[in-house]
Amino acid sequence: MVSRGSKMALHRASGVGCRLGKSYVRVLCTGSVQPVKEDKPRVFSGIQPTGVPHLGNYLGAIESWVQLQDEYSSALYSIVDLHSITVPQDPAILRQSILHMTACLLACGLNPEKAIIFQQSQVNEHTELGWILGCLISFSHLRQLHHWKVKIQTQKNEGSVGLLTYPVLQCADILLYKSTHVPVGEDQVQHLELTQDTARRFNKKYGEFFPVPKALLGTSKKIKSLRDPSVKMSKSDPDKLATVNITDSPEEIVQKFRKAVTDFTSEVTYDPDHRPGVSNMVAIHSAVTGLDVDEIVHQSIDLDTAHYKLVVAEAVIQKLAPVRSEIEKLKADHGYLTNVLTSGTEKAKELCIPIFQEIRRLVGLI
Amino acid sequence: MVSRGSKMALHRASGVGCRLGKSYVRVLCTGSVQPVKEDKPRVFSGIQPTGVPHLGNYLGAIESWVQLQDEYSSALYSIVDLHSITVPQDPAILRQSILHMTACLLACGLNPEKAIIFQQSQVNEHTELGWILGCLISFSHLRQLHHWKVKIQTQKNEGSVGLLTYPVLQCADILLYKSTHVPVGEDQVQHLELTQDTARRFNKKYGEFFPVPKALLGTSKKIKSLRDPSVKMSKSDPDKLATVNITDSPEEIVQKFRKAVTDFTSEVTYDPDHRPGVSNMVAIHSAVTGLDVDEIVHQSIDLDTAHYKLVVAEAVIQKLAPVRSEIEKLKADHGYLTNVLTSGTEKAKELCIPIFQEIRRLVGLI
Repeated sequence: MVSRGSKMALHRASGVGCRLGKSYVRVLCTGSVQPVKEDKPRVFSGIQPTGVPHLGNYLGAIESWVQLQDEYSSALYSIVDLHSITVPQDPAILRQSILHMTACLLACGLNPEKAIIFQQSQVNEHTELGWILGCLISFSHLRQLHHWKVKIQTQKNEGSVGLLTYPVLQCADILLYKSTHVPVGEDQVQHLELTQDTARRFNKKYGEFFPVPKALLGTSKKIKSLRDPSVKMSKSDPDKLATVNITDSPEEIVQKFRKAVTDFTSEVTYDPDHRPGVSNMVAIHSAVTGLDVDEIVHQSIDLDTAHYKLVVAEAVIQKLAPVRSEIEKLKADHGYLTNVLTSGTEKAKELCIPIFQEIRRLVGLI
Repeated sequence: MVSRGSKMALHRASGVGCRLGKSYVRVLCTGSVQPVKEDKPRVFSGIQPTGVPHLGNYLGAIESWVQLQDEYSSALYSIVDLHSITVPQDPAILRQSILHMTACLLACGLNPEKAIIFQQSQVNEHTELGWILGCLISFSHLRQLHHWKVKIQTQKNEGSVGLLTYPVLQCADILLYKSTHVPVGEDQVQHLELTQDTARRFNKKYGEFFPVPKALLGTSKKIKSLRDPSVKMSKSDPDKLATVNITDSPEEIVQKFRKAVTDFTSEVTYDPDHRPGVSNMVAIHSAVTGLDVDEIVHQSIDLDTAHYKLVVAEAVIQKLAPVRSEIEKLKADHGYLTNVLTSGTEKAKELCIPIFQEIRRLVGLI
């Protein structure tokens, strides 16, 4: 069910975003602000189909996607399978993971009537636009990006051409739909800047065409590893106790929170700099209940951290219970999941084909 | 009519090939020879739509394409517009050049009833397969290829991502049709080796699927610059007298041959090492008439090189006259040229879509 690498990473350009709707979302437009003009507001984001989302993905990104599908009349969420093959995948597992990720997104609240949920590889205009944009992006710009330096260090084998060039495909993912807003994590701002720069470069060469997409930068607290609160919660964490998956059973959740690293002070306080472990508990508690941090700390005045961890675990179990049961239900219905993706792909194609034909015309290919 | 760079380069993977049919063609399969098994023999080659072919292109490659369309029941010749945009192009000129290149190919004898003549960018499976294959090719392998070292030296600006990665797209161009034979020049063997290596790598990971394509290496004499017989005739030669275009008028051809560099010996002999200039004349003469080199030298025993150059010019004029007049006729009929490309694109899609669907299935994308 989970891919070989057991690695689910959000679409790297657009992974961790805002979470709690308009009032929590900070719009970030780096560089000179380009007016969106008459371009219809449109949200684009993507997620890799390599495993089950974890609590950090859910609270940090997917919940905001659900919010954004209500706030924007046009929102596209892509299962970016072409990004996932930049590192080795087992074909049978990948095939299954695409459907499972669809189930997870639907269970988390994405609504195919409101947003277009589709599989990237089924819309091959993505790669052709990627090629066209790659002819506008200098190689030296690409290799200076942080991702490449990090990725080649973490790959056992040397990096593939795909691993080097995926930020170019991300530019195409976003621009193919003339997207105007992209939920991103702070660590992904550099990639969105590449997209913005590429949009401007295209517009300069071929005439104003693409809106320069704005970042929707989440302001919610980051969910940290339960075993090392100095790092983000991550699917690829080798310590399985570090990460809560949204499909974890109540028993697994209790066990992980029970083993969560805090410190030798028993009081519950919120002080991320000096007490990162217990503060991570409070942040998770706040995120899953919607309660204010101060309120939580006040409520927990009589608890020591050992008991408090179980309170947080219970809140997480409550939050995830309906999601988990919905995932189980949906996973059994491959026909429905396939229909959602097929219908999403049709809608995505309907949107992008006229845009892409215009791009071909501008470039001189038709 | 000619693109800004005035540069027509053959598709770099498959540019200069064999010329005079089966008996002149040496099949080259580098590395371990993979049996083609039941794969239907299929020729693939491509040409960039950036200008008019010159005499070297015509004699070195296009004539062999004409021969191969008779020898192979399946042959595809692609106008590789996506390769041409790896360096800057003017959109209006590129658009026109695509049709003009179609006219040139037809005038040279390519027959849309026998071969599939199509425009690469209209079959966007090329770029999606390029992406998939790029995930199997290591970046360090790519940057070791000769092309990149040379290209970044000759570009005024630093090279684009497209300029780095075009050999990956070439792999896709060839493999998308399960091509078995690729006419290439000797300087392109390295790129076909990348394709062969990539086919093997894919087969190893996903099961035997692609035939490992064989090079059809031309054995015809290379046509050299008329101004510097130590280098190949090239469209990008800054000295306009160095290159004979297939659309040159008789007057232009005479002028170019009159100014052709030979040496201070007046006799006509064939000795490429010591007398490259006059030997290039003999080679061109042999290529356009089909006469043997010895026979030509024997026939020219009473001529000095100054007169001989005019004899060769006349032979070239005779050879190119019907081609030139046909190009003029075809260029006026945009409707016909467009129909040829549209119909070729349909046939190319019909061939590649089932292959590509199977690739997607093998990789786990469906």
